[in-house]
Amino acid sequence: MKSNILNVVVIILMASGLCAAQSSAEVVEDFLPSSVNQSGKEYPMVNSEGRVRVQLSAPEATKVQLDISAVKYDLVKDENGVWTGESAPQDVGFHYYQLWVDGAAVPDPNSLYFYGAGRWGSGIEIPSDDQDIFALKDVPHGDLREVHYYSKSSDKVRRAFIYTPPGYQKDQSKSYPVLYLQHGMGENETGWGSQGHTGLIMDNLIAEGKALPFIIVMENSSVNFEKLRASRSEQNPEADSTRRRRGPGGGVDFSAEFKKVLLNDLIPYVETNYRVIANPEHRAMAGLSMGGMQTRLITLANPEVFSQVGMFSGGSISPEDIEKAPEFKNNVKLLFISYGSHELENRRMSFGGDPKVNTEALKAAGMNTHFYVSPGTAHEWHSWRRSLYQFAQLVFKN
Amino acid sequence: MKSNILNVVVIILMASGLCAAQSSAEVVEDFLPSSVNQSGKEYPMVNSEGRVRVQLSAPEATKVQLDISAVKYDLVKDENGVWTGESAPQDVGFHYYQLWVDGAAVPDPNSLYFYGAGRWGSGIEIPSDDQDIFALKDVPHGDLREVHYYSKSSDKVRRAFIYTPPGYQKDQSKSYPVLYLQHGMGENETGWGSQGHTGLIMDNLIAEGKALPFIIVMENSSVNFEKLRASRSEQNPEADSTRRRRGPGGGVDFSAEFKKVLLNDLIPYVETNYRVIANPEHRAMAGLSMGGMQTRLITLANPEVFSQVGMFSGGSISPEDIEKAPEFKNNVKLLFISYGSHELENRRMSFGGDPKVNTEALKAAGMNTHFYVSPGTAHEWHSWRRSLYQFAQLVFKN
Repeated sequence: MKSNILNVVVIILMASGLCAAQSSAEVVEDFLPSSVNQSGKEYPMVNSEGRVRVQLSAPEATKVQLDISAVKYDLVKDENGVWTGESAPQDVGFHYYQLWVDGAAVPDPNSLYFYGAGRWGSGIEIPSDDQDIFALKDVPHGDLREVHYYSKSSDKVRRAFIYTPPGYQKDQSKSYPVLYLQHGMGENETGWGSQGHTGLIMDNLIAEGKALPFIIVMENSSVNFEKLRASRSEQNPEADSTRRRRGPGGGVDFSAEFKKVLLNDLIPYVETNYRVIANPEHRAMAGLSMGGMQTRLITLANPEVFSQVGMFSGGSISPEDIEKAPEFKNNVKLLFISYGSHELENRRMSFGGDPKVNTEALKAAGMNTHFYVSPGTAHEWHSWRRSLYQFAQLVFKN
Repeated sequence: MKSNILNVVVIILMASGLCAAQSSAEVVEDFLPSSVNQSGKEYPMVNSEGRVRVQLSAPEATKVQLDISAVKYDLVKDENGVWTGESAPQDVGFHYYQLWVDGAAVPDPNSLYFYGAGRWGSGIEIPSDDQDIFALKDVPHGDLREVHYYSKSSDKVRRAFIYTPPGYQKDQSKSYPVLYLQHGMGENETGWGSQGHTGLIMDNLIAEGKALPFIIVMENSSVNFEKLRASRSEQNPEADSTRRRRGPGGGVDFSAEFKKVLLNDLIPYVETNYRVIANPEHRAMAGLSMGGMQTRLITLANPEVFSQVGMFSGGSISPEDIEKAPEFKNNVKLLFISYGSHELENRRMSFGGDPKVNTEALKAAGMNTHFYVSPGTAHEWHSWRRSLYQFAQLVFKN
């Protein structure tokens, strides 16, 4: 009798397994509210496949779409005028998205808003199995400070965000290393502290004794874009193409204007106003995507300023680069290069040579290099949170 | 000849004056981009009358509306599918708004977003002639810190924002008074630091020597609403009406849960982690609207904790209240009551007696009271920024 029941159970389980396999296009109905919804909002939701389901009341609309990862998905209207629909499965991590209502591109009124893709707009989190790295726990917490300082290079008061680690407040005798951490193109100084969860990642690492406490400074490195735009309207049609030609590796020189702000204004502001260990051994620069490229350009050109370098989904440094910048090889004590695994599969952003080959070549040449691949993620924030999580455990320990 | 020209000029001026008077319904075409637009966005715009003009591309829509100050205005579609339209003149100051696209209520994709009306959504600034009080200037700036702390009363890690004045960082020998500053209903702990411009108001006042430097702590005082919601789902249908009956003056008791967080968790956290003068003489509480009512309830019940009290558009304290709380009269060194002039005209929020009459009666009875009316403003943030601007010049000076 017992074995008969077991057989039936096994058959049912097998049948349901087959059924699931046969209907892979069907949507698994285990949706839960997104972790970055506005308080009390049920939608948007995410299921175990990573599909995003949105809902919007638009009784008089004729077409409503969800626009995520460059694909638009039609929603379906019910008898109450409420539109619902879902996307194909998304990579784990954080994605910007928007809705289209009869041709108008608008934020989803149910999500929290984040700055990315050059705008404040909706974001969604596809849960990963290592979300614990940025979970809000009852551990000592650092502060995330919004600060204003006068930048002579920009001739204006600029805003930055500064993370100070737990204990910074209380123990006034201690000084700290500093990491200058940059966002990507179309993002700004809010990204790392918001969708990047920099503070929580650091609080958790420090509580577990896995990272040394250090200060993190986050500024807006799109300075030159503002200037480029201004220069165009100043009847200087050559400015844009000149800059582009000047850029190393045939790319745009993203770093010129930001470099002035960083080296001449921001670092002096931080080192005057915070308890920092003001020497190259305790000064790091890292960034994601465009911020990684800026890190590459600025640290290659200024190895007397930074000894610790991180580039997340933002290119790599080749043996040829090092030949042209021998001081970089001598002075830099940590070079950390990372990518999301899906980026490598798609050969995305691997300009300037294969990042793994480059990084291993520098290791063979005697540099302290690390190459990290974030499993199952693309060119998005979970790759970069994990990169920070890895980088933070290595930096200032050499 | 000269007098002839003068006559013509006078006649033209008179005619244009008459013309303007006759066509008062016509829109004055001097619109400029709102100061709280997303970077680089031309719309929404505001004109000298205080009208708000929005624009949205929605080629397939049949109806698009601007929804501001509880009125919906139809927009007009051009041949490219771009909808444009404007509101009636608005009071100076800050207003939440949204768009309707074929029945869907959505944020304007061009504005910055603010938390109010129980959601993250669009905001607009109608310029006032005293915007200089929160202008970003090249003066020493304080920091606005996002902090996390464990609250035993809520049994969770909570978030607060803390403004530390210029100089707090550098001069480690100095301790500061503290103001606990509350938002209104449907708002949260981000309001004062964002649309309230608390940091810039204080930086400017301190730079001009008009206010003493002090710390400002901003927390979310809607704690009981969360609990109320939870209690409903816990099959306790009486909880809501019981709380309502218990509230003084027939109103809801907004303060019960937040009071626990404030007195048992937040004040101890601040006094342990910041350099504060931890006594009632150097402890203030103020708030706007619901936050003013909470300030009233909490300070009347705990005059041994706070000596400085501010209520902005949130009721007043009557001689009858004082009779029941004699310690309040003895201990409180500053009682500041304020309203926007349009609120008083509409008799809005004047429950518990006329605020001016009440406040003057307490002054006559020997208390240090101040009654401030913000000219030409309503129940919105410019009334409250001005109230903070006035309150900050009085507090901790008695």
